[in-house]
Amino acid sequence: MQDEKLRQVLRIHAGRLVGDGLPLPDVQTAERALKSWDEWFDFWSRRGAEYEQLADEELAVGHDLTAGRLFWFGSMAHHYAQFLWWHDAAVKTVGQEEKSRLYRRAAPLLQPAARPFEVVVDGLRVPGFLRLPPGPGPHPCVILLGGLESTKEESLLFEDLCLDRGVATCAFDGPGQGDFLGQSVLRPDFERFTSAVVDFLESEPAVAGDRIGVLGRSLGGYYAVRSAACDERLRACGVWGAFFDLSFFEDLSPSAAVGFAYVSGFAQPADAREFLQRSIDLSDVAGRLNCPTYVLHGGADDLIPVSQVEKLRAALPPELDVVWDIPPEGNHCCHNMHHLVRPRMADWLADTL
Amino acid sequence: MQDEKLRQVLRIHAGRLVGDGLPLPDVQTAERALKSWDEWFDFWSRRGAEYEQLADEELAVGHDLTAGRLFWFGSMAHHYAQFLWWHDAAVKTVGQEEKSRLYRRAAPLLQPAARPFEVVVDGLRVPGFLRLPPGPGPHPCVILLGGLESTKEESLLFEDLCLDRGVATCAFDGPGQGDFLGQSVLRPDFERFTSAVVDFLESEPAVAGDRIGVLGRSLGGYYAVRSAACDERLRACGVWGAFFDLSFFEDLSPSAAVGFAYVSGFAQPADAREFLQRSIDLSDVAGRLNCPTYVLHGGADDLIPVSQVEKLRAALPPELDVVWDIPPEGNHCCHNMHHLVRPRMADWLADTL
Repeated sequence: MQDEKLRQVLRIHAGRLVGDGLPLPDVQTAERALKSWDEWFDFWSRRGAEYEQLADEELAVGHDLTAGRLFWFGSMAHHYAQFLWWHDAAVKTVGQEEKSRLYRRAAPLLQPAARPFEVVVDGLRVPGFLRLPPGPGPHPCVILLGGLESTKEESLLFEDLCLDRGVATCAFDGPGQGDFLGQSVLRPDFERFTSAVVDFLESEPAVAGDRIGVLGRSLGGYYAVRSAACDERLRACGVWGAFFDLSFFEDLSPSAAVGFAYVSGFAQPADAREFLQRSIDLSDVAGRLNCPTYVLHGGADDLIPVSQVEKLRAALPPELDVVWDIPPEGNHCCHNMHHLVRPRMADWLADTL
Repeated sequence: MQDEKLRQVLRIHAGRLVGDGLPLPDVQTAERALKSWDEWFDFWSRRGAEYEQLADEELAVGHDLTAGRLFWFGSMAHHYAQFLWWHDAAVKTVGQEEKSRLYRRAAPLLQPAARPFEVVVDGLRVPGFLRLPPGPGPHPCVILLGGLESTKEESLLFEDLCLDRGVATCAFDGPGQGDFLGQSVLRPDFERFTSAVVDFLESEPAVAGDRIGVLGRSLGGYYAVRSAACDERLRACGVWGAFFDLSFFEDLSPSAAVGFAYVSGFAQPADAREFLQRSIDLSDVAGRLNCPTYVLHGGADDLIPVSQVEKLRAALPPELDVVWDIPPEGNHCCHNMHHLVRPRMADWLADTL
C-alpha cells in the first residue's frame, strides 16, 4: 500500500508529471514500486543518473538528438525528485543542481538548441535560456515564467509547441525560483527581472523587439500579469492559472504553505504569511494592464481557488481584450487536459504576437 | 470493479496506448470510468467524434497545426475503439473507417504533411502515406509496416522520430491490414506489396532510390524480414518484434488467435491454423537476407515468445550484420519502454540509410 502523501502526489500530479515530460513508463514504475513518499527522491534521483549515463552513451556515438532528449529526461527526473521536497533543503538543493546541470548538458543538443544567457539585476546574475525557431527572424518571442516550484527547465514541451508555431521562447528563473533561489528569495518586484530580460531580448537581433509577450504558470500567472502591467513593451500576457493574491493563504495545502515559506526564506508558514500576502498582490497594478491577455484556469483547480479568477476579472480594465478559458473539468493549470489547452495557448501567442 | 478483459487490455497495452499517441488524460479517464470491456468501443468512439469537432473548430480559425493533431487524436481514438474488437465485424469496420477518414483529414495538416498515394498490385489498390523531411532531398526513406492490428495511421510518433533525423517515412496497409482488409485478407506474399511500394518510391524524386529501408512491428517484423530478404533494393531491415513463424499458434492468447483468424477470413482459429502456419514462415527466405538488420524484442514479451528470436537468429546468414536489442524488461515490442527504444531504432535507420 502507498502512504497517503505518495498517493496524493501521484493523483494530483499525474497529468502534470507526464505532460511536463517525465516518461510514462517511469511514472508507472513509480506507481507500482514505491510504497512511501520517503522513497520518492531516491527513486527519481536514480532515474536521473541512469538517463545521464544513457545520454552519454548516445553522445559518444554521435546521436545528438537522442542524447539531448535523454539528458533532458534526466533533468526532469532530478527536477521531480526534489519537487515538493521542502522539508530537507540540503537534499532539495542537490536535486535542483542536478536538474540544472543536466539541462545545461541537454541545451546545445536540443532542436532547436537552448542558448544560455544571463542578465544582471542589482548585481545578481539571472540565468535563462533562449530558443529560436528556424530561419533568420526576427521572430516573435514569449518569455516563460515558472511558479512556486516549476522552473525554466520544465517548459520544454510547451516551448516546442510555441517554436512549431514560429514563436521563440525565453525561460528564466527569477527570485525564489530554481537556480536563482540561492541568490534571491521571493521578492515583491519580480517584474524588474522580467523587464531586464526584455532588455536583453531587445538587444538580440533574431528577436523582434516589438513582438515580445510573457506567459506564466501557477504563481507565474501572477508574475506574468505583474510584469505585463508594469512594462508596456510586453504585447501579450498569458496567464496559465489565475493568481491574484494570497488571500487564500489559510486554505493552502500544508505542502504549498511550506513551499511558499521555503522560497521566501522563512522556516515556518506562519512566519512568512505577512510578507507573502504583502508581496503577492496584484491590486496595485492590475488596472494598468493593457495588452491582449489570455487567462486559462481549471474550474476544478484544488490548489488555486477559482475565486482568484473573479478577483482578477474584477481588477482588470473593463475594456481589456481578454480570452477567458475556464474548462470546468480542468485541475490545477489544467494539467489533466494538457494536450488540449497547451496548443490553444501556443496558438493564441502566435496569433497575438 | 473492472472486468477481467478490460483490466487485461489496460495492463498489457498501457504503454502502447500512450506511446502510440492516445492522450494520457483519456487513458486515465478510461481507467477510472469504464467498468467493462463492453463499454470500450463506445467510449473511444465518442472521444474520436469529440476530437473531430474540436479539430473542426480550430481549422475554422486557421490553427492548422493544432487541428491536424486533433484530427489525428480522433483517428487514434477510433483506431483504439476497434482494436481487438474481433467479435463484431460490423462495429469494427465502422471504427476502421472512422480512423482512416480522420487520418485523411489530418494528413495535409501534419508537419510535415502526409501525402496519400496508391500502388496497384494484381488490380488491388494499396493505400499509403509518404512524409518527407524538410529540404529538397533526395532523402533516405523507411517503409513502415504494421502488424496484426496496427496500421499505417498509428506510426505517426515513430515517423516523427525518423523525420527529425532526416529519414522520410512511408506507411501502407497490406493484405489483412486496416484499410486494405476489405480488398484482401492476409496473404503469404506480403513482400510483393512492399516491393510495389519500393517501385513507387523509386519514382519519387524526393526519395533516394538507393537508400530505402523497411521496418515492421509485431507481425510486421515478420513482413519486414520477408520483404527485405526478397527485394535487394531494401538496404536496411528493422524488426520491431521478432516473428519467425506461427509454430506457437497454440500458445496465442484467445484474442490474438481470433484476430489472426479474422484478418485471414476464417470464422474460427481452428479453421485458420493450417493456412496461417503455412503462410507465416520465414524458413524459405531468412537465409537470403543480406542487408543490415536491427532486431528489437522485449525479453518479457508475453505475446510473441522470445524463442522466436532464437529461431530467427538460427536462420539468418551467420555473416549478416545484425544488431540484437533484447531488453530483458521489455514487454511486447518494448512498448513499456517506448521512449528509449524508438529513438534507438530511428537512429539506427538514419545511420544505416
